[in-house]
Amino acid sequence: MKSELGRLLGLEGDVNLHFVDSPALHGNALGDPSTRPLAVYTPPDFDPGGSKRYATIYVLHGYTGDVAALVAARPWETNVIQWADRLVRAGEMPPTLVALIDGYNRLGGSQYVDSIGSGAYATHTVRDSVGFVDATYPTIASEGGRAVVGKSSGGFGAMYLAMTRPGVFCAFASHSGDANFYGAYVGEFPRTRRILETHGGDARAFVESFEKKFKRSSDELHAIMLLGQAAAYSPRSAVAFDFDLPFDLVTGALREDVFARWLAFDPAEICVDYEAALAALRLRYLDCGSRDEYGLDAGARMVVARMRDMGLDVRHEEFDDDHRNVGYRYATSFPALARVMEAG
Amino acid sequence: MKSELGRLLGLEGDVNLHFVDSPALHGNALGDPSTRPLAVYTPPDFDPGGSKRYATIYVLHGYTGDVAALVAARPWETNVIQWADRLVRAGEMPPTLVALIDGYNRLGGSQYVDSIGSGAYATHTVRDSVGFVDATYPTIASEGGRAVVGKSSGGFGAMYLAMTRPGVFCAFASHSGDANFYGAYVGEFPRTRRILETHGGDARAFVESFEKKFKRSSDELHAIMLLGQAAAYSPRSAVAFDFDLPFDLVTGALREDVFARWLAFDPAEICVDYEAALAALRLRYLDCGSRDEYGLDAGARMVVARMRDMGLDVRHEEFDDDHRNVGYRYATSFPALARVMEAG
Amino acid sequence: MKSELGRLLGLEGDVNLHFVDSPALHGNALGDPSTRPLAVYTPPDFDPGGSKRYATIYVLHGYTGDVAALVAARPWETNVIQWADRLVRAGEMPPTLVALIDGYNRLGGSQYVDSIGSGAYATHTVRDSVGFVDATYPTIASEGGRAVVGKSSGGFGAMYLAMTRPGVFCAFASHSGDANFYGAYVGEFPRTRRILETHGGDARAFVESFEKKFKRSSDELHAIMLLGQAAAYSPRSAVAFDFDLPFDLVTGALREDVFARWLAFDPAEICVDYEAALAALRLRYLDCGSRDEYGLDAGARMVVARMRDMGLDVRHEEFDDDHRNVGYRYATSFPALARVMEAG
Amino acid sequence: MKSELGRLLGLEGDVNLHFVDSPALHGNALGDPSTRPLAVYTPPDFDPGGSKRYATIYVLHGYTGDVAALVAARPWETNVIQWADRLVRAGEMPPTLVALIDGYNRLGGSQYVDSIGSGAYATHTVRDSVGFVDATYPTIASEGGRAVVGKSSGGFGAMYLAMTRPGVFCAFASHSGDANFYGAYVGEFPRTRRILETHGGDARAFVESFEKKFKRSSDELHAIMLLGQAAAYSPRSAVAFDFDLPFDLVTGALREDVFARWLAFDPAEICVDYEAALAALRLRYLDCGSRDEYGLDAGARMVVARMRDMGLDVRHEEFDDDHRNVGYRYATSFPALARVMEAG
Repeated sequence: MKSELGRLLGLEGDVNLHFVDSPALHGNALGDPSTRPLAVYTPPDFDPGGSKRYATIYVLHGYTGDVAALVAARPWETNVIQWADRLVRAGEMPPTLVALIDGYNRLGGSQYVDSIGSGAYATHTVRDSVGFVDATYPTIASEGGRAVVGKSSGGFGAMYLAMTRPGVFCAFASHSGDANFYGAYVGEFPRTRRILETHGGDARAFVESFEKKFKRSSDELHAIMLLGQAAAYSPRSAVAFDFDLPFDLVTGALREDVFARWLAFDPAEICVDYEAALAALRLRYLDCGSRDEYGLDAGARMVVARMRDMGLDVRHEEFDDDHRNVGYRYATSFPALARVMEAG
Repeated sequence: MKSELGRLLGLEGDVNLHFVDSPALHGNALGDPSTRPLAVYTPPDFDPGGSKRYATIYVLHGYTGDVAALVAARPWETNVIQWADRLVRAGEMPPTLVALIDGYNRLGGSQYVDSIGSGAYATHTVRDSVGFVDATYPTIASEGGRAVVGKSSGGFGAMYLAMTRPGVFCAFASHSGDANFYGAYVGEFPRTRRILETHGGDARAFVESFEKKFKRSSDELHAIMLLGQAAAYSPRSAVAFDFDLPFDLVTGALREDVFARWLAFDPAEICVDYEAALAALRLRYLDCGSRDEYGLDAGARMVVARMRDMGLDVRHEEFDDDHRNVGYRYATSFPALARVMEAG
Repeated sequence: MKSELGRLLGLEGDVNLHFVDSPALHGNALGDPSTRPLAVYTPPDFDPGGSKRYATIYVLHGYTGDVAALVAARPWETNVIQWADRLVRAGEMPPTLVALIDGYNRLGGSQYVDSIGSGAYATHTVRDSVGFVDATYPTIASEGGRAVVGKSSGGFGAMYLAMTRPGVFCAFASHSGDANFYGAYVGEFPRTRRILETHGGDARAFVESFEKKFKRSSDELHAIMLLGQAAAYSPRSAVAFDFDLPFDLVTGALREDVFARWLAFDPAEICVDYEAALAALRLRYLDCGSRDEYGLDAGARMVVARMRDMGLDVRHEEFDDDHRNVGYRYATSFPALARVMEAG
Repeated sequence: MKSELGRLLGLEGDVNLHFVDSPALHGNALGDPSTRPLAVYTPPDFDPGGSKRYATIYVLHGYTGDVAALVAARPWETNVIQWADRLVRAGEMPPTLVALIDGYNRLGGSQYVDSIGSGAYATHTVRDSVGFVDATYPTIASEGGRAVVGKSSGGFGAMYLAMTRPGVFCAFASHSGDANFYGAYVGEFPRTRRILETHGGDARAFVESFEKKFKRSSDELHAIMLLGQAAAYSPRSAVAFDFDLPFDLVTGALREDVFARWLAFDPAEICVDYEAALAALRLRYLDCGSRDEYGLDAGARMVVARMRDMGLDVRHEEFDDDHRNVGYRYATSFPALARVMEAG
């Protein structure tokens, strides 16, 4: 029988919500729960007990998102599960599982990296979440049966995990993923510095105030995002809020030593260090809106240029749009990923 | 055992999704489904088979919303069900059922009126949906056990149904509800006229184009809203898209005869005709943001002034905000409504 | 020798600034000066003492403008005088005088009407200013040698004076001129009501506060514009700030009796009353941006439709733009006006 | 007798427009005129032939400005000359000359530096323009009688010239002046790269297209500004448009070698190299809006911190505003500059 959520979303297939305890997140620095929702889309005619094995696409949400936001629906909009169902129904991709991973934390997102400052979200994703799906569903439980995709910070996560965790996924797709941190991040520093200044430079004080508000400004959302990045990229210890900021709190001057630690995660910088992992992939896919507000179209171009310099094939597209609401790009990436994965 | 959705939303109570066939919507003009989702929040310790009877708050969504949008969740946001749960947990309102009604149609919303041009959404609400809840849950199945509330078009619906369908609800709350149609609607006419003109003045052609898009502009959303209002207020027949527009398609001039039919639904105009129904209510509640983009703060003031002129008590608040994301106002209206409803 | 201003503007012709005392403005209600700047563009080879007589285009500025703003220059922009010079130089219009009239007052603009509430600006324009130009320059000092043009409120003024002051001008051109007051003005009422409320409903208190500010918001500018219109359209007496507002200060409800006085100036309403004056014109010209924020494209269409219903030829254009910075439309209207005026 | 412009601006003093040939600009790379407007404000009771000598404040306009824009007036606004007149009249500053210098070029601004790529605008300012004023007016023709002030790029120019051209001015004031080029400029690169790409990467093609337009977008204005900076900071030769861009035209990657040439002009970077010149000044003044869109508040803080580290006094203020229309800050800087200059 179809789940309530599957029915609400009007799926021909279905979706199951699991709540999975992730050992990787036990005792994380920010005190976030280790039990996380994990949603799995199953296509029409899915037979959990049959002999058929399914390839799985793992979806990573963006900043300020989570699994609840991924499964949310609105009139006229198509969410990621509805896209999967629509593509399978239309025969544009074979029956495939789609698993939605939760990488949210108190600072709005983990960037899917392992950090003492926020938690081991890379391990949470590639070990605990993938492990749960393989243990629970009739998957093709090997690299060739798994791909990873995401938008914005989720696109960053897809690139980052495909590079740094070889052997888990055979393909990645990054939609408007973070890259070229100079271009993408530095422009946000002044606004965040001002907000922190109104809280005496105390990140915790700002976050506690932020959490109590009914409505939050764009500047406040960018500020918490920057704190999340600091916890991910430049933590000082496993104490909550003990991280280095990439700018001087008084003058706003760039702290080059701290920013160098950030750049050690920038796909445009580090892709050259992961040539073997990247070469082993069956598909490297990046796209971005040509009017992206964060200049991530340039970031994608830089990643693509460097991968091509290494002799790798990359699928690269630009589309006429900005950073927001580009979920319709799944209609391009899902079939492309499904095509290179093993069929059961 | 808690529902998946209840768990995803982190409720101490729970929420059930029903899919209810509404005879009122059979054969509706726009071809929308007659089976609709209906979500019911149940408080902690709810005992479906016990002797306790519960009061029920009915929630009507706004334009471009539906039940799926009402139950959707996002980080840092509190949806209407989460508000109910939070208020009950905090002891700010007694254990109460909260039922979310779906009044969506192909033109983005029905305004909860009975119209040959869109469907019998008033009847769908007060007869079929209320009937289902009373038949399914241990409710106080009479006027004294029911209240109705909504935001924007949902606030209009709450006022409209409380006035025109006496004996169903004992109280209403309107958050930023449509009133003063002159001030609220006329300013949108030029943008809609232009959009229709690009489709040869053919509303159906515009809607079909609209439905195929991946992204929709603010102007397009206002245009479809205006068509939905025309189908609700000034239908010509039960044929889809056969309605009168309140302006000349070529010059944009106001068509006063058509607009008069719209004004026959304007709470600020018609409240004087429903004195008995209004007087029978235990609570009349209106609030609005003092920076409402549609000038609905003026609409609320007009309604309030006219009700007070009739000698009725009205609770009226203005708050420092605009039209969007004012869900935190449920924290004020829910306890106020619960206070006047009968306790089981 | 060329004037400093003519040199600063890089003119091949020249421009003279006069300061003219206008008897019509003596003792005006708002205490504005009766001596006003009046700028006259003279084409290359202009000979003030020769036998050649020149046709004159009178330019009316828009709301919050004045003669100083009309002659102001900025890199890459072409002001109205620079347009005239450029068109004459390019041979797209014959050597013509262009006179810039000042219709500014303390409330940001007079709408070029005679009002006890602000001043006799229609008379200031058609009698005192035209009279000065005819007395000072070798003009064709009759209807056939004069045309009037303006943008926004200046476009309104051009239409209004051409209709109501027959025998002065032989042609008008309205760029984005005010018409269809329902569509253009009513949408601004809520914001103005709120601003006045913060000053206890006292228009004078708001204006005094406004005048002291270093920066003014868009809402504040719209508010003072609305007061200027009230002083022009619905004055109560010759006492400053003694005028009727078209909405209730508490509820915002439209005051239909007051608004009827406004509509008595709406070109879309009143053009039918001035058939003879309109028929006597050699050119009736209206254009508007098809994305005009005030919906004045609809206003132009209404005026045009009614004039054509009277059997009059009208030149009507829509262009792909909004309300602001449409000075490049002079490149169309000036030659059209020059073509129908008598040549000296 | 008062000049026409002085009368139009309602001055109690007066303003004279000169057109001065500047040898420094002969044969400049961009083909801009070497004769430039230069406006001089003279206070009430100014006696050109008397024995009194006057101190002079030199005003540098911002990007996309010029002398014509500086003298332009609008209702309710106070331009820089009107500020000077108002401050003198109110006794808030002694009678002082104010000279407005033109540093405009085909790319929207010269940054007041000497560059083979645009022209010798530093020399144009400190030698040719100052020389003309001293030769024409009864000035205190030495360092102690001159100060320099500007907004935005003009503020940069004031700092830059005070540092690098010692002995000309005894004080500078920078309102929202460019500093911290990392924070202020890098965020604009993506938008400019896209615009250049639509012109095949050809800066000249973009500029020619830009010049032909009637209206220009914010992105286009930022793009030409960036080209102007490239011509100023990183020229390759004296051929028009032959300069290096600080980013890769294809990927958008920062070109660190080129950007290093830009940083050689960043006041926050280079002020430490001009300690003697800075120490010789009687006033170092920086202010900035605390919501500056370019983060120039951080730039000012960095400059101030470094100057204070050198043991220098700096007057530093932040005010609650953004980058635009901050001319009211002259009310603070003019009296402060006048106070330290020699009185005649």
